[in-house]
Amino acid sequence: MTSFRLRCIECAALHDAGVRTLACRRCGSPLEVLYEGDGPSYDADFSGIWGLGALLPIGDRSCIVSLGEGNTPVVRLEGVGRGLGLVSLWGKLEYQAPTGSFKDRGTTVLMSALKEAGVREIVEDSSGNAGASLAAYAARAGVVAHIFAPSSAPVAKLQQIQVYGAKVHTVDGSREAATEAAKEFAEERGLVYASHNLSSYVAEGTKTFAYEIAQQMAGRMPRHVVIPVGNGSLLIGAWKGFLELRAKGVIAEMPHLYGVQAEVVQPIAAAYEGREWRPQEGSRTIAGGISVGQPPRLRQALRAMQETGGRPVAVTDEAILRWQLALARQEGIYAEPTSAAAFAGLEALVSLGFIAAGDTVLAPVTGIGLKDAPPV
Amino acid sequence: MTSFRLRCIECAALHDAGVRTLACRRCGSPLEVLYEGDGPSYDADFSGIWGLGALLPIGDRSCIVSLGEGNTPVVRLEGVGRGLGLVSLWGKLEYQAPTGSFKDRGTTVLMSALKEAGVREIVEDSSGNAGASLAAYAARAGVVAHIFAPSSAPVAKLQQIQVYGAKVHTVDGSREAATEAAKEFAEERGLVYASHNLSSYVAEGTKTFAYEIAQQMAGRMPRHVVIPVGNGSLLIGAWKGFLELRAKGVIAEMPHLYGVQAEVVQPIAAAYEGREWRPQEGSRTIAGGISVGQPPRLRQALRAMQETGGRPVAVTDEAILRWQLALARQEGIYAEPTSAAAFAGLEALVSLGFIAAGDTVLAPVTGIGLKDAPPV
Repeated sequence: MTSFRLRCIECAALHDAGVRTLACRRCGSPLEVLYEGDGPSYDADFSGIWGLGALLPIGDRSCIVSLGEGNTPVVRLEGVGRGLGLVSLWGKLEYQAPTGSFKDRGTTVLMSALKEAGVREIVEDSSGNAGASLAAYAARAGVVAHIFAPSSAPVAKLQQIQVYGAKVHTVDGSREAATEAAKEFAEERGLVYASHNLSSYVAEGTKTFAYEIAQQMAGRMPRHVVIPVGNGSLLIGAWKGFLELRAKGVIAEMPHLYGVQAEVVQPIAAAYEGREWRPQEGSRTIAGGISVGQPPRLRQALRAMQETGGRPVAVTDEAILRWQLALARQEGIYAEPTSAAAFAGLEALVSLGFIAAGDTVLAPVTGIGLKDAPPV
Repeated sequence: MTSFRLRCIECAALHDAGVRTLACRRCGSPLEVLYEGDGPSYDADFSGIWGLGALLPIGDRSCIVSLGEGNTPVVRLEGVGRGLGLVSLWGKLEYQAPTGSFKDRGTTVLMSALKEAGVREIVEDSSGNAGASLAAYAARAGVVAHIFAPSSAPVAKLQQIQVYGAKVHTVDGSREAATEAAKEFAEERGLVYASHNLSSYVAEGTKTFAYEIAQQMAGRMPRHVVIPVGNGSLLIGAWKGFLELRAKGVIAEMPHLYGVQAEVVQPIAAAYEGREWRPQEGSRTIAGGISVGQPPRLRQALRAMQETGGRPVAVTDEAILRWQLALARQEGIYAEPTSAAAFAGLEALVSLGFIAAGDTVLAPVTGIGLKDAPPV
C-alpha cells in the first residue's frame, strides 16, 4: 500500500485518512482516496480483489476481512445481444459473490479498514444488498453491525441481514428516512457510521471491477459499459479503476460509462439534462438498489459519465421486469430487478443511437434474483 | 479431449459414450466415464472448469454451455475451527456459483454433452438445486427442460426453476415419486432423461472440485474432506478428481473423504455399518439436497469413502439448523441446510476422534442459504 489521504471531490481539500471521515470539513462534500506520488504498481496477473492489495488502502494485510470476493466471470450474451442487434455483448456476473451482489467488493475494503482502525461496532443504512454485505463481513470480522433499512425492503433481503446476526432496525417511510435514523443512532452512541455511500473506501473496492474487465477483456476492451446507478458506488468505482488503468498505460482509451436509473426515481438522469426533479412521496421503483432520491455523490456520478462520453438514461419498471425474465429465459441468468435495469437501459441506448451494432458492450449483472423474485 | 467410453461401476462392462446411456446394459448398474490410455494431460495453471477442458468429455468446444462456473474461493474458517478445536479448517465456497450451488459444475458438462449430441428437449427430477441448475443451463443452450420436483420442495427453489422458463411438474409424495414420474414422462415422449444422479457426465464436472483444491491448497493439502452426501455427486466427483491427480503425480496422498447424511435419511451411513435401513413414509430432513432414500450410486459413494480411509456419518436436523446459523454468525457464510450438514458432520467426526486437532480439513459450502432460509 502507498500512503494516502482523503480528497474532497468538490473543493479538493485534503484530509487525513480515517474511517470516521465521511465528508469534507471545509465544504461538506463527499471524499475520495488520493494516493501519494504516481500511486502503487501492480501485477497484471492478479487473482481476486486482494490480488490487487497494493492498490487498496489497507496497510496491515492481517486485517483483511475476505470471503473470496471478486474474480467474477465475464460471459458472452449471444441471445440477448442478437435481440438488441449487438454483435459483441458481454455480461460480468457480479452476483456470483459472497452475499450475492457486487457490494461485497466495497465491503471487503471498508470492513478491512474498520478492522485496521480497531472498530468493534458500526451503523449502516441500506435498501438491502449493502446491508446484507456489511452484515456478513461484520460477522466474519467479529464486529457488531446495526443495519437501518426501509420497512418496504424485500423480506428475503431483511432476513438475510438477520441471519448474519446483525441488528436490523426497520424504518417506515422513504429510503432517506432510514439514512437519517442511522446517522442519528450513530451520533447518539458515538459509533462509526460505515456508510456505503459516503465512505471513500467503498470505491477503492469497486474499482477492482475495472481492473478485472481489463484483465478478462484484454484485446477486446468494451467501448461501452452500462451500469445501474442509484448511489453510484459501482459507476464511480469503475470510473476510478479505468482512470488508474489508463494512467498506468494498461488501457489506451476510457470506455464510455452509462448509468441506468428508474423513470420514477431519476435524480441523476434529470440533473444531466438540466431538468427539475424532486422525489415524490411514495415514488418507488421495483429496482430497490437504485431507488435513491438524493444520492450524495450525484455530481461525481455525473462527471464519471460526462468525462467518459457516456450519459444516464431512465427506464420504466415494466421494462425492468421484462428484462429480468428475458435474462433468465434467454441466458440462464437470474438477476434482481436492479440488475435487469442495466439491460433495459442498454435497450434504450441502442434505440436512441448512442450504442452502435458493431460496438463491444459490457454490463454487470449486479445482484442475484433470489432475493427479489419476479412474479411468474 | 481424449476419446472415452462408459464403464459399468459394478461389472466393468464397456459401452459407447452417449447422453442417453444411463445404466449398464448387462447388469443395470450406473456408469462412469473411462478415458483411453493414460488420460489427458492438463496445465496446472488452469482457471475455471473449462480451463480443464482437455480433461472433460466434450470434443467440440463450440458446444460448451457455460455461465462462468468453477473458480470458487477457498477461505479459512478461523472462528468455526477454533470452536471445534481445529487449527486449520478451510471452506470452499461452492455456493458462489451461477445458480447458487455446486450442481453447476456437473450441469455445465452435462448440458454441453447434450448440446454436442443435438438434444433439444430434456427431462430431469430434482429436489431443487439440480433442477434450478439444469433449468438455467437449458435456457442458455436453448433447450426445453421439464423438471419434476416433490411438491414439498422449498418455494424459492421451485420458483427459481420457473423463472428460467423450464416446465415444472410437481409430484406429491416422496423424492422417489418425482424420479419415477420423470422417467415415465421421458419414456412416453422419447425425450432424454438428463438425470444428475445417473448420467456419467456429471461426475466429470464435479471432479473439477478436486482439481481446484489441489491448485488452491498446494503445499497444505487437506488430510480430510467432509462433504454432504445424498446422491453423492460431489463426493464421487471429488474421489474421481483426486484419483486422477494422484495418477498424474500432482498429489502424493488421497485425502480421506467423509460423507454426511441426515439421521432421518441415512441409507449410505447405514450400509457402511451393515445396519438395516429403509425409507419411512414421510421421513424427510430439512436438508433437502441429501434427503435421498435410495441413491442409485450408493455403492460407488461407499467405495469413495472406504478406499480413501474416510466414512459416512449421520447428523440430526437440530444440529444442521444450529450450524446454518453458526456459519452465518461466525463466518459471514449464509449456507443452505444441506451445506450446514457438512459442519454438523465435521463436529461429530472430531468428537468421535476420526479427525484430530492438528489436521488440515476442508469442507465445501455447497449451496446458498437464500433458497432455504432458517427461522430467525
